[in-house]
Amino acid sequence: MQQTGQIFHKALVIGLGLIGGSVLQGMIDNRLAGRLYAVDFDKSVIHHAMADKLIQAGDDELLNLANTGVLTDCDCVIIAVPAFAVKAILEKIKTAIDNQLLPSDVIISDTASTKGNILQDAFAIFGELPPNLVLAHPIAGAEKSGFMARNGALFKSHKLIICPHDFNDKQAVDKIATLWQSLGASVDFMPSDKHDEILALTSHLPHLLSYALTYQLATDEENLNIFKYAGGGFRDFSRISASSPIMWHDIFLANKQAVLQGLEDYQAILNQLKADIENDNSEKLLETFEIAKNAREYFGRLLVEKEKLKNL
Amino acid sequence: MQQTGQIFHKALVIGLGLIGGSVLQGMIDNRLAGRLYAVDFDKSVIHHAMADKLIQAGDDELLNLANTGVLTDCDCVIIAVPAFAVKAILEKIKTAIDNQLLPSDVIISDTASTKGNILQDAFAIFGELPPNLVLAHPIAGAEKSGFMARNGALFKSHKLIICPHDFNDKQAVDKIATLWQSLGASVDFMPSDKHDEILALTSHLPHLLSYALTYQLATDEENLNIFKYAGGGFRDFSRISASSPIMWHDIFLANKQAVLQGLEDYQAILNQLKADIENDNSEKLLETFEIAKNAREYFGRLLVEKEKLKNL
Repeated sequence: MQQTGQIFHKALVIGLGLIGGSVLQGMIDNRLAGRLYAVDFDKSVIHHAMADKLIQAGDDELLNLANTGVLTDCDCVIIAVPAFAVKAILEKIKTAIDNQLLPSDVIISDTASTKGNILQDAFAIFGELPPNLVLAHPIAGAEKSGFMARNGALFKSHKLIICPHDFNDKQAVDKIATLWQSLGASVDFMPSDKHDEILALTSHLPHLLSYALTYQLATDEENLNIFKYAGGGFRDFSRISASSPIMWHDIFLANKQAVLQGLEDYQAILNQLKADIENDNSEKLLETFEIAKNAREYFGRLLVEKEKLKNL
Repeated sequence: MQQTGQIFHKALVIGLGLIGGSVLQGMIDNRLAGRLYAVDFDKSVIHHAMADKLIQAGDDELLNLANTGVLTDCDCVIIAVPAFAVKAILEKIKTAIDNQLLPSDVIISDTASTKGNILQDAFAIFGELPPNLVLAHPIAGAEKSGFMARNGALFKSHKLIICPHDFNDKQAVDKIATLWQSLGASVDFMPSDKHDEILALTSHLPHLLSYALTYQLATDEENLNIFKYAGGGFRDFSRISASSPIMWHDIFLANKQAVLQGLEDYQAILNQLKADIENDNSEKLLETFEIAKNAREYFGRLLVEKEKLKNL
């Protein structure tokens, strides 16, 4: 981890869920910002953050906070709201900048799990890709959610992907990279379309496939009785089927193109496996399963290494 | 749990892996058989079981053990070998019966996870469905495998499915049900085709789907680098991809018909989800995910209840 000291003069975190709350806490723990502000639609969370002196000021509405004038020299905004809500936030930021309530060169970053759609929205709202808009995505989560589950060390040893765009200001990108490195994350850079492709395969597709099988069992003629006979394999496979329908609905639509492409490739593999089973193609089946098994064991070793790094 | 005392005079367990070893141990712990014998292809396991006085005699070859004459009054054989190996065991049992080394009315049972194929094999070998052949499948497993991981309480509060066939002797079925109830299992009865259908959906299909996605990631152009960006969702979803390729190859082929039917139904659901994403059909997507989420939460509650029962 890089020890950097203060990176920003005044930072604003929008959305104090698990991710936004953990960014805020991490910035406090590592003294990365001179002053901290926050916006969350839940007023009680803002009250809590102020009462605990985690932030200097906050509001449930960005423009109300901006109207007080405290953000005129704010140099960083982190948008930590669900993917579908980023667009409305960008519109409000544009309004605040237009009204000189936020500096025109404020660095704007996010934490969303899809990127192409945010670039599109930003272009539509700003009429260009803002040089200070730096897209970032921490690959981290936890069983718990919400501000009370925040953890300043949540990102330690986790990947953080930054997706620079063609018109990005290099200094802005560097500052966001430094921010996340200071929170313990390992920062990688890649284009937004590559990011969306990778996330479609490693995260979005497993959720879709798990939802689909759990739905199949739920709508079986056995009508839920079938779950009596499910064991540990199904338990693990289907755990993510209990994820938020609204959040995942948003993600699948926000990352539509990459999800559909990944799904098509998956369907081709399923069709091949189906044919191999139909035709007793033992050699091909064994080869496919061996490749999968070896890859899963490789992934298991990566997880063990990550755990070790976290506990350093 | 039913307390029954001795059910069998002389029982033989064929295959001392986790399941066979746990059946043996459970029969000892609960004094369910007067004398116990075992066969395993691994001679060292037999030596170990004899040295620890778990069995009176054993061998790595069923006919060798039978030739010593100790099984002429054996009243129960439990076949606890992988699905693909059951057929060869049934052939040897037939030979032993034909040579009066096993009684013609010995109760023969198994623990395999597919049933239709075993009925077919038995019919081919015996020229009829033997009245004393009782097909059983304990829905239990553990992280560990092998004889050393055996646990006499492994089946406690787990489902045990018995698939009676049309020519079954009622008393033989009752004795096998009593055996498993005495080991703590909750016994359900259903036809073998229903069993194979349920297992295809709750166990075989998840394994196939998990293998397929892990294979897709492993053969991505990123060539394993993509796993660096996978998180907890993929970790759980893909855990079963590390299962034994040979064992699962056998199961998919042994339960071909039900697996292919389940897969076809799954593909139809995937196609529907794909169309819903393509067409921004929010209402339909949310409805599907809600049904899945509710079903997964119901399943989670079943698991909690089962854990509570186990700890009684």
